[in-house]
Amino acid sequence: MTHLPDVRWLCGFTGSNAALVLVNRPRARAVLFTDGRYTTQAKAEAAGVRVAMSVKPAAVAACEWMAEAGVRRCGFDRTQTTVAALDAMRAAVPGRLRRGMFVALEPLVAKLREVKDAGEIQKMRAAAALGCRLFERMLGFMQPGMTEMAVAAELEHAARLGGAERMSFDTIVASGERSALPHGHATSAKLPRRGFVTMDFGVVVDGYCSDMTRTVHLGRASDEERHAYEAVLEAQEAGVAAVRAGVATHEVDQAARSVLHKTGLADWFTHSTGHGVGLEIHEGPRLARRPADAVKPQVEALKPGMVVTIEPGVYIPGKFGVRIEDTVVVTRAGCEILTPSTKAWIEL
Amino acid sequence: MTHLPDVRWLCGFTGSNAALVLVNRPRARAVLFTDGRYTTQAKAEAAGVRVAMSVKPAAVAACEWMAEAGVRRCGFDRTQTTVAALDAMRAAVPGRLRRGMFVALEPLVAKLREVKDAGEIQKMRAAAALGCRLFERMLGFMQPGMTEMAVAAELEHAARLGGAERMSFDTIVASGERSALPHGHATSAKLPRRGFVTMDFGVVVDGYCSDMTRTVHLGRASDEERHAYEAVLEAQEAGVAAVRAGVATHEVDQAARSVLHKTGLADWFTHSTGHGVGLEIHEGPRLARRPADAVKPQVEALKPGMVVTIEPGVYIPGKFGVRIEDTVVVTRAGCEILTPSTKAWIEL
Repeated sequence: MTHLPDVRWLCGFTGSNAALVLVNRPRARAVLFTDGRYTTQAKAEAAGVRVAMSVKPAAVAACEWMAEAGVRRCGFDRTQTTVAALDAMRAAVPGRLRRGMFVALEPLVAKLREVKDAGEIQKMRAAAALGCRLFERMLGFMQPGMTEMAVAAELEHAARLGGAERMSFDTIVASGERSALPHGHATSAKLPRRGFVTMDFGVVVDGYCSDMTRTVHLGRASDEERHAYEAVLEAQEAGVAAVRAGVATHEVDQAARSVLHKTGLADWFTHSTGHGVGLEIHEGPRLARRPADAVKPQVEALKPGMVVTIEPGVYIPGKFGVRIEDTVVVTRAGCEILTPSTKAWIEL
Repeated sequence: MTHLPDVRWLCGFTGSNAALVLVNRPRARAVLFTDGRYTTQAKAEAAGVRVAMSVKPAAVAACEWMAEAGVRRCGFDRTQTTVAALDAMRAAVPGRLRRGMFVALEPLVAKLREVKDAGEIQKMRAAAALGCRLFERMLGFMQPGMTEMAVAAELEHAARLGGAERMSFDTIVASGERSALPHGHATSAKLPRRGFVTMDFGVVVDGYCSDMTRTVHLGRASDEERHAYEAVLEAQEAGVAAVRAGVATHEVDQAARSVLHKTGLADWFTHSTGHGVGLEIHEGPRLARRPADAVKPQVEALKPGMVVTIEPGVYIPGKFGVRIEDTVVVTRAGCEILTPSTKAWIEL
């Protein structure tokens, strides 16, 4: 394993350079390869795992060790291993071992990570609760004329003081016409007297990401704005209502999307309904449309303990945009909403 | 090109999902593939480039387009393309084209990006100047008993208000014994009455990263601490003095490292002397030791316009650590220091 969230999930190490080898025979063992910057940290974090330092790339050091330790077959994650890395891994073992040693695998650990255990859900609850407090704080802070960056600065400062290790992604504060940019990172644009402000942000607590979006209106809204907001809210609630263990991911997307179809806004909903979240801000499963062009589309069902976002939006270029997003934990009966901040219409 | 900093450097697009195709014949043209979240943004940012939206992965959409457009050979960056992505690219073109179509290349654009033009250097100067202002502000803010996270929160808040789009990496505030962790991200640990505080941080302005480290001492230092600081400072200044167009990267490392050898601290200098910085916080060139075990080690010479860090440190586990880092622009005669904040001994 070389993908850092996988390494962390398996052994606890949080450094920025790592390769973790899990050997199954002749006896099970784990060896973590990193570099000299992490000597102290790796031993403290990856308790019970042998730690080896190297000035070589961690995956190369790992492969050299495997060759010497008698390992003859090594699976690697094909979605996380570059062509160059695989070449370097091959070059790190003697020629007579090279053939057949490396086996490309689908992501095994990332798939396991999709279902969170109770301890992980507790961490995600804490991160999401901090996110909700931040949103509520911003309601009392935002003013027309303030820059989007000033809003982001305040939100991020409060996040840090509230215990966030970092933001889980670049904070989106998209106001006025810029709310029509689904990924409108905070800029020096000023909040308008009248118009939407979309805030999409997340914090990292104990390694786990929160993710939520709320859209509020400054000043009096037009009927068109109000209509779009109500439609997105109805779509979002339909998405949340569709979540339950056993339901196919595309059915959740469909539940949200069909509301926007009904209200004539579906053409402006240009992304998928949601994604998994955990140690990474974007993980599996994806809650997207069922692929129309695949011969045999893969259907994936939600499982208890998956944590996913439900975040439909409409974006009308040159006019405005609205997105509303919750993070929820899938349960057998439905879901637990981790981000219970109000989604009711707010005019500030 | 699918590596986002390469795409941005070539065409200006800053979205999180992109594949840029540069076609050389029969006529030169550029086509940018992204998804519907970025319709408005891509057209605004990537002026002069044809923009195509797809719900498919951008690289897959790009390969389908190339096959139809009559492109018969396509180079890809072997260090940025995963085994899975290459498989998907191959599957996106008809079987008769597949053989020989995709050619693994060393990073071409990342190599070009190592040398910055005047406009880029101006942006990096602005980012570094903001970094320096932040360091000076923190000198008046830090107090024993305050948490490392409170220091990071203040620094990051001031960064945002000063115009930073984001931090270029997780802010390091490592105090007391934690200063012996080269990558000690800010925690809830409290600043000690007596001990070092290492601050390593960077801001992003106009997409370009700053990077600087300063280590200050709270309270009175021991002779050992003072000695280590002076040694690291001498090493750092020797590194800076060695920078000049035409000098090999390992010579800069050697200049810094030899000072620490002389003072008996080299065993505690567990990383390389520096790295390139630009749109990414870690870019080429690396300023590291000359590989001892390579048959024919590759020697790389500094070029005018390269922007690199010079950041030796010593880390004594269980005791303390010191690192001092500047970012400099390589010139024909030597270098321009972008981070002129004082490196003199500071006791707060």
